[in-house]
Amino acid sequence: MKLFRFGPEGEEKPGVELPDGKQLDVTAFGEDYNEDFFEGNGIGRLKAWLKENQEKCHEVPAGFRFGPAVKRPSKLICIGLNYAKHAAESGMDVPKEPVVFFKATSSIVGPNDPVVIPRGSEKTDWEVELAVVIGKKASYVTKEEAMDHVAGYVLHNDYSERAYQLERGGQWVKGKSCDTFAPLGPYLVTTDEKLDPHNLNLWLKVNGEMLQNSNTSDFIFDIPTVISYLSEFMTLLPGDVISTGTPAGVGLGFQPPRYLKPGDVVELGIEGLGSSKQEAVAYKVQ
Amino acid sequence: MKLFRFGPEGEEKPGVELPDGKQLDVTAFGEDYNEDFFEGNGIGRLKAWLKENQEKCHEVPAGFRFGPAVKRPSKLICIGLNYAKHAAESGMDVPKEPVVFFKATSSIVGPNDPVVIPRGSEKTDWEVELAVVIGKKASYVTKEEAMDHVAGYVLHNDYSERAYQLERGGQWVKGKSCDTFAPLGPYLVTTDEKLDPHNLNLWLKVNGEMLQNSNTSDFIFDIPTVISYLSEFMTLLPGDVISTGTPAGVGLGFQPPRYLKPGDVVELGIEGLGSSKQEAVAYKVQ
Repeated sequence: MKLFRFGPEGEEKPGVELPDGKQLDVTAFGEDYNEDFFEGNGIGRLKAWLKENQEKCHEVPAGFRFGPAVKRPSKLICIGLNYAKHAAESGMDVPKEPVVFFKATSSIVGPNDPVVIPRGSEKTDWEVELAVVIGKKASYVTKEEAMDHVAGYVLHNDYSERAYQLERGGQWVKGKSCDTFAPLGPYLVTTDEKLDPHNLNLWLKVNGEMLQNSNTSDFIFDIPTVISYLSEFMTLLPGDVISTGTPAGVGLGFQPPRYLKPGDVVELGIEGLGSSKQEAVAYKVQ
Repeated sequence: MKLFRFGPEGEEKPGVELPDGKQLDVTAFGEDYNEDFFEGNGIGRLKAWLKENQEKCHEVPAGFRFGPAVKRPSKLICIGLNYAKHAAESGMDVPKEPVVFFKATSSIVGPNDPVVIPRGSEKTDWEVELAVVIGKKASYVTKEEAMDHVAGYVLHNDYSERAYQLERGGQWVKGKSCDTFAPLGPYLVTTDEKLDPHNLNLWLKVNGEMLQNSNTSDFIFDIPTVISYLSEFMTLLPGDVISTGTPAGVGLGFQPPRYLKPGDVVELGIEGLGSSKQEAVAYKVQ
């Protein structure tokens, strides 16, 4: 299934896009796409419910806003340097084991919401990524078991403020957690759609210029490896989001580096998962 | 007020400890100590409610388990190396600005729950810390405004697996996020208790031997500085927990280093916030 969430920020409702493109409001199902939903086999139950109730569901109103494809998870975990070419452009060695960092979940927004350049900052950068949504609690799972713990896949732009990440001392989290730095969506495409997550084209353009263009077949660590690895260090909860790293072509990798200015438009997509678009805006005091 | 949560894991109920030591079950108030509670001035409302309803509240059953003092927050943020002596024992320079890292919120447990040594690991270490609970959303707040965003204080043991943190490549989060690595409690002591968070003794013993013994007056970065600083990089949400760093005396700092073995007992406390006690146990396949 292709799940999405729609409506104003903080008031999103659940939707389902049918194979014919029809976008249904499934509020009547009575659940949001959150930890409880995934934990309780919500995907299976929603599918069964749709068979009975599809005809009664309204289509979503035209011009709706896409919200984040899943409700705020307990964790937004990212894998760094997971494409060999991107590691090289960042001037870092190919890692021997996965590089792991967190983003604050308060950075999550809808896929087409503006990205806010933090106050006074100058190095906001883009990173198109395939993100995995966990469907079932995972602790010390093997690579062989790992894919049973996946609910589906979602497009993510792992925005990063490079000065905050790399020049302010300590850990990367400072440059990864700003509000609006994690547009998630439009769709959570569930595993029953039989996408091959290890062979998907992904791309990103800034102001129409193609800057990232690769395929997930270039992963250094594949998804079972990443899930199994993470589950040694922490329990992955249903609904948790794991972003699998970005290919070459980020702003930091150019000579000289290129960063976003207000008015720039970032578009990105992954084969089968749809596309998203963010306009960069300056921070405004609220 | 002194707030606590009691009952079996995952089914905790809210409690209040009165000045005379009586521990009341305030389930009838109808809310848990979570984001919505703090956001909606829950502390003020609970106080008013207690005035009317205190006589009707039962005492909590004898021998109850303390749960984490707050329900799972959106973020568990830690400040590294915030006491000069601890920075020295870790062989690190005193930081120019706060060092920030995250722990997975799935690591949070009750204050007296066992600490599970991760499977096959050998370097589980302790860190007594004063943690701050956010009461009001904070984004770009000044130092002067910062304390208005605090709900209260809680005792935290920031357990760390040093090999995972420092020898496995990349970021510290790997060694900070294991299940049971964040006992929080027993109490959330709210700011109306007028504790001075910058002058509290804190201590930690392993098997009865005092290993950490300091005072929060030794902070490199005080609480207003930390909150104001963090709020530049991310929005702090009500209920978020910020752990302010640990003083000297962690296992990593000894020559040779000392780490926990199954059966070891860790006790810790902070003046005015109570004490907690964790027994180290080996990981068991579930």
